[in-house]
Amino acid sequence: MINFEALFKISYGLYIVCSGDKNLGNGFISNTVFQVTSEPARFAACCHKNNFTSGFIMDSRAFSVSVLKRDASSEIFGRFGYKSGKDFDKLAGMDIRYGDTGVPVVLNESIAFIECRLDQTIDLGTHLMFIGELVNAEILDNTKEPITYLYYRQVKKAVAPKNAPTYINRSKSEVKPMVLFSKYECPACGFIYDESAEKVKFEDLPEDWVCPACGCGKTDFIKIYQ
Amino acid sequence: MINFEALFKISYGLYIVCSGDKNLGNGFISNTVFQVTSEPARFAACCHKNNFTSGFIMDSRAFSVSVLKRDASSEIFGRFGYKSGKDFDKLAGMDIRYGDTGVPVVLNESIAFIECRLDQTIDLGTHLMFIGELVNAEILDNTKEPITYLYYRQVKKAVAPKNAPTYINRSKSEVKPMVLFSKYECPACGFIYDESAEKVKFEDLPEDWVCPACGCGKTDFIKIYQ
Repeated sequence: MINFEALFKISYGLYIVCSGDKNLGNGFISNTVFQVTSEPARFAACCHKNNFTSGFIMDSRAFSVSVLKRDASSEIFGRFGYKSGKDFDKLAGMDIRYGDTGVPVVLNESIAFIECRLDQTIDLGTHLMFIGELVNAEILDNTKEPITYLYYRQVKKAVAPKNAPTYINRSKSEVKPMVLFSKYECPACGFIYDESAEKVKFEDLPEDWVCPACGCGKTDFIKIYQ
Repeated sequence: MINFEALFKISYGLYIVCSGDKNLGNGFISNTVFQVTSEPARFAACCHKNNFTSGFIMDSRAFSVSVLKRDASSEIFGRFGYKSGKDFDKLAGMDIRYGDTGVPVVLNESIAFIECRLDQTIDLGTHLMFIGELVNAEILDNTKEPITYLYYRQVKKAVAPKNAPTYINRSKSEVKPMVLFSKYECPACGFIYDESAEKVKFEDLPEDWVCPACGCGKTDFIKIYQ
């Protein structure tokens, strides 16, 4: 028996994994970053094959990981977690440092970062696991705690985007009640669009409608049953 | 520049990873368990090659992961984290369930468990990474939070054992001051043996001396500089 709720008991942090160079780069929000060996210190990061950052990591053969602070904003999750770098330059206007390997490191809302040189790439079907040797590690703000995935889910009421290793397809895993009105949840900030309160069906909203709280696109919203 | 303190900003939980069968099995404390793909749901767990549990996972081609509760006892960390199953049967007297794959699942002090059938084994030099497909996931106690590695370090004042992927050799990474008396820390429970208070040098303690707080062996203690 698989109770998918049990999977939320596994602890994760939340990070911006970034790659590329001074000309072009991209980053995405990841919860699966972890140290896999101590001598040498090596880290793994999982990335969906469709993810725009995957190609940058393979080309640059390096990646950076910025550790987001506990009170990181919905805007940073919206920008790096629920939008694609294929559509706009995620790094434009951000506070970026370039590491020893040349990859960009996002400093905004981060308390520390690590930088790794790619060692191995493991094919996991839908995802790639990148394993890299640590070349750089710095603390940016020692007064703040890192955000955890549990805190993000419980306090920010957010859910994993479709490309995340921990994404759960709720339409499959939950019984759908018969309702005339539905609610739709912003995956980035947890904003609830309630059809019964708004008197406009979600599907009738214009295609360029965005989350009033964080600007996340309409197509990212997830139908919820409560 | 590598500041090893930055690595502590990466978030982990703490788990008992277990394998074997009804006749013989073993488990160890791991902080590197994480979901790597969502369809199918697959999990990775890292294990030192010297770790007694590695052989069981390769033979049984399955493993279980018990998620430890936040207030898990020093005894459970001492038993599964800092002692080897080569010396005694860690599972004897424990509350064990056998999963769909036949592997033992430790229920003591755990709030949930998952069970995976081995899919891939990746050689990482000192460690093996086992990747398994989820076959079973249950919540055991929904009223408690999972323990995080940060909580374990900050509140329990514990440090990673030598075989952990996140182990840091403090004698290498810190400048040693000139002192006549030293302190030694129990890696399991954080107990401090203070030579200046005890008036007995740690090295002069008998070889069968154990931590008075949790029973951890003398050789596991780590010299600290404060």
